[in-house]
Amino acid sequence: MTKMSRRQFFCSTAVAASTGGLLGGRELAQAQTHDAHGGGGAGGGAAGAAAGGAAVHGGGVNGPTFRRGSVVDHVANGFDPTDVLRDFDWGRTRRLASGRVLREWEVFAGDKEIEVAPGVTFPAWVFNGRVPGPTLRCREGELLRVRFVNGSRHPHTMHFHGVHPSAMDGVPGQGAGVIPSGGSTTYEFEAEPFGLHLYHCHVSPLAEHIARGLYGTFIVDPRDGRPDADELVMVQHGYNTTFDGEGNQLYAVNGIPFHYMHEPVRVRRGELIRIYLVNALEYDPINTFHLHGNFFHYFPTGTSLQPIEFTDTVMQAQAQRGICELRFPNAGAFMFHAHKTEFAELGWMGMFEVS
Amino acid sequence: MTKMSRRQFFCSTAVAASTGGLLGGRELAQAQTHDAHGGGGAGGGAAGAAAGGAAVHGGGVNGPTFRRGSVVDHVANGFDPTDVLRDFDWGRTRRLASGRVLREWEVFAGDKEIEVAPGVTFPAWVFNGRVPGPTLRCREGELLRVRFVNGSRHPHTMHFHGVHPSAMDGVPGQGAGVIPSGGSTTYEFEAEPFGLHLYHCHVSPLAEHIARGLYGTFIVDPRDGRPDADELVMVQHGYNTTFDGEGNQLYAVNGIPFHYMHEPVRVRRGELIRIYLVNALEYDPINTFHLHGNFFHYFPTGTSLQPIEFTDTVMQAQAQRGICELRFPNAGAFMFHAHKTEFAELGWMGMFEVS
Amino acid sequence: MTKMSRRQFFCSTAVAASTGGLLGGRELAQAQTHDAHGGGGAGGGAAGAAAGGAAVHGGGVNGPTFRRGSVVDHVANGFDPTDVLRDFDWGRTRRLASGRVLREWEVFAGDKEIEVAPGVTFPAWVFNGRVPGPTLRCREGELLRVRFVNGSRHPHTMHFHGVHPSAMDGVPGQGAGVIPSGGSTTYEFEAEPFGLHLYHCHVSPLAEHIARGLYGTFIVDPRDGRPDADELVMVQHGYNTTFDGEGNQLYAVNGIPFHYMHEPVRVRRGELIRIYLVNALEYDPINTFHLHGNFFHYFPTGTSLQPIEFTDTVMQAQAQRGICELRFPNAGAFMFHAHKTEFAELGWMGMFEVS
Repeated sequence: MTKMSRRQFFCSTAVAASTGGLLGGRELAQAQTHDAHGGGGAGGGAAGAAAGGAAVHGGGVNGPTFRRGSVVDHVANGFDPTDVLRDFDWGRTRRLASGRVLREWEVFAGDKEIEVAPGVTFPAWVFNGRVPGPTLRCREGELLRVRFVNGSRHPHTMHFHGVHPSAMDGVPGQGAGVIPSGGSTTYEFEAEPFGLHLYHCHVSPLAEHIARGLYGTFIVDPRDGRPDADELVMVQHGYNTTFDGEGNQLYAVNGIPFHYMHEPVRVRRGELIRIYLVNALEYDPINTFHLHGNFFHYFPTGTSLQPIEFTDTVMQAQAQRGICELRFPNAGAFMFHAHKTEFAELGWMGMFEVS
Repeated sequence: MTKMSRRQFFCSTAVAASTGGLLGGRELAQAQTHDAHGGGGAGGGAAGAAAGGAAVHGGGVNGPTFRRGSVVDHVANGFDPTDVLRDFDWGRTRRLASGRVLREWEVFAGDKEIEVAPGVTFPAWVFNGRVPGPTLRCREGELLRVRFVNGSRHPHTMHFHGVHPSAMDGVPGQGAGVIPSGGSTTYEFEAEPFGLHLYHCHVSPLAEHIARGLYGTFIVDPRDGRPDADELVMVQHGYNTTFDGEGNQLYAVNGIPFHYMHEPVRVRRGELIRIYLVNALEYDPINTFHLHGNFFHYFPTGTSLQPIEFTDTVMQAQAQRGICELRFPNAGAFMFHAHKTEFAELGWMGMFEVS
Repeated sequence: MTKMSRRQFFCSTAVAASTGGLLGGRELAQAQTHDAHGGGGAGGGAAGAAAGGAAVHGGGVNGPTFRRGSVVDHVANGFDPTDVLRDFDWGRTRRLASGRVLREWEVFAGDKEIEVAPGVTFPAWVFNGRVPGPTLRCREGELLRVRFVNGSRHPHTMHFHGVHPSAMDGVPGQGAGVIPSGGSTTYEFEAEPFGLHLYHCHVSPLAEHIARGLYGTFIVDPRDGRPDADELVMVQHGYNTTFDGEGNQLYAVNGIPFHYMHEPVRVRRGELIRIYLVNALEYDPINTFHLHGNFFHYFPTGTSLQPIEFTDTVMQAQAQRGICELRFPNAGAFMFHAHKTEFAELGWMGMFEVS
């Protein structure tokens, strides 16, 4: 019944076993291995080894679990974080008699085992088979219809951040309320205000319904659009692989820890880059995003066309989100990661490859 | 001597007993009950039950402790969160020979048992019998006098956030310094700058003197006022019912966890609403405020008449505060809660009823 | 293998001993003493004593470890926080044939025992013998060269926040990469953008390399400078004296907990004061800065000449930083401290003396 730190947990099979946790023997071994090398760095093994205390700290992305060449099976997972970056789901549209655009999507909730680290699976709850769910994108003033079908064994909803009637809020007791396993409903509302928003399940226990993976990005473009750019979505989140409800053992953007260390985000020098940055992290109080060797303009919630800050580090609580706009003046490889160091060393780091 | 998580604590009477904590048998039972149902949601029991794992997570506002119909005794408490919302204490004024307005209050510190959840009492330290203390309100440039009488068995002060001489700072060693039990003093200073501020006791151990309930809102109106609005005060805070100094077991706005789930905040569609949002939460690093189905303009510290952001989620560290301005375009019921999910599920959630 | 709270740790020698921690008997006794009196307040002993529960909470800056007259040996440490406040290292400059200014520094990494509290030493890793490292200051558009010599027994780098080529990023695998013990390199880049930045070691395990003391302030002045002011640097940080990687036992600005309680920061009434405020705190999610009896204009990251907020409390995640500009209208003594109360009571508090 004692509380272990996240590191201690992984260092003690006896205690881990006594908790009756959900990790099986093989998974536990994997987890121990990756955490025993949780330190991690961006580059060569020399760094990790030379830094000392490798048995406790060394490794990270270079450790036995995450080392180059040892990656998860994206095909089996059904999604690849590299594709998630630029995968905007515009749904399908038709023009109503009034001249207004009606935009429609279908979103399915389901249960799915995801390989979140090589050999480590996580029993996720997912929208359209992904963590994070699809990036739903539309334009200010359109009429939106989201057909939601719950194929999970658990009850769920879709709660959108945005302006809408209470019956469309996707919470228990309002409108269709909780959608049981096998049920469905349609959420209908106007696309407003323009900005960067999110959606997530709002069934209790709320923390678990979010932590299991039921969140995604919701973008409402301004009526006149934004300047042309190479647009990227980055959803910050974590995995509480022990299901103790106390914190996360792995951290990521767009589904897979350390993914962009193996496959850098490829962008062009001098081009405008627009990052839709969302924090869906459960359990931890905050998350941060730091970019190396460069600065960005930050538009909190994306609801203004004027940035609020020019910086290289921003902080977001859960459900906060903002747009980062930048251009790389130099070619080369540039890290980005949480400047909550612990998160970085447990998966929340990646690279830009600028050419 | 082991550290338990908040949930684990409530699951283990043996350990709880061995800590020699302040909860008696009946209170502990209550606490266990409420926590065993900490999950909670806004609506029907179906949600909680269907979500699974109810023994660990289910319940919350619908659980045995907090369920509808089971509320605290506001009369015995001496304050009602519904009244606290719009209760602005303007003190009494007279015009000085110089033409300047002198505004005066009397504030009493005291010790008081407060029923913070049905059947669960908390030995609070209070200003004027309330948690939070009275909302002291004035206008920029006035001369303020606060007569402070310490009727508590413990030494206290009133430390105001604002501009004032060091002798009026309400801290040990400056001016009247610490006011002993039975003592009194008068704090006198100008009302500046305009904005949303707070006051709290500043006697050490500072964390406990705040956590026990000694905080309140201090509003300085701009010389020319703000636009007419339905104005609401919301002070975010918590209760460390185990007095372990490690964190809170209950979270609330304006004194009573889940209060506005039972008695929604009633507002009118289309009317300008101004929320004075203050974070007095001790022990936790941050707090957040999320509004459903709507957005607000945010004025941090209330010291500018121009908002900084248009959003539905803001984050505040302890002593940060800001004004939220909004209009509901739709009638209906809309949740508001901390988007730190844990806080929401332990009491920091409520409803707006828009008609 | 149990996790202790920070307070509990210090209250239990048996457990502390069983952890095989790095504190020796004398240091542990000291640590227990200071923590047993962690409450602390600004003023006279009356406050601490009268507050009750002194054996658990009372004392702080007035307790046996930190009480007035009992201070650390700044000469042996090789730096004094009072000097650090206004110690800007402009390096040395010469004009290149192109007319451009070249600015150069030499920075040495080393290992050093620092007396962080009276009788308590911490085996720090330091830049130029200090915690925090030197405040490197330059002007927008200059060419900068930092000669880095690693005299530590551990591998290190200097990673600058700012715009620069990837080869100059000071991370493993880019450019010179990790600089081994005894090695050296030269970082060369332009001074951009203007603002308040920082540098730190970026070798893994990153958390430890920062937490040991390897961080400092990096200021790029705007081309046309800022208005004349009494300029101060304040780097917020902590000491994880148990090396458990779970949190800090001591908190400080500019190296020594409670230092400015013993030696207030002396400033002049009415004069413009500019504080370069940097958060280098490892392990904790956020840090905050609160000023008593006054307000300041806040410029996040210092990259704009327009402030974003007028307040008395700001929050920063690690690597966030901002400029605070203010004038004291009143003479006297005014506290400043983290409004994360726990940090304040463990060292992160100080005084301004305005004359």
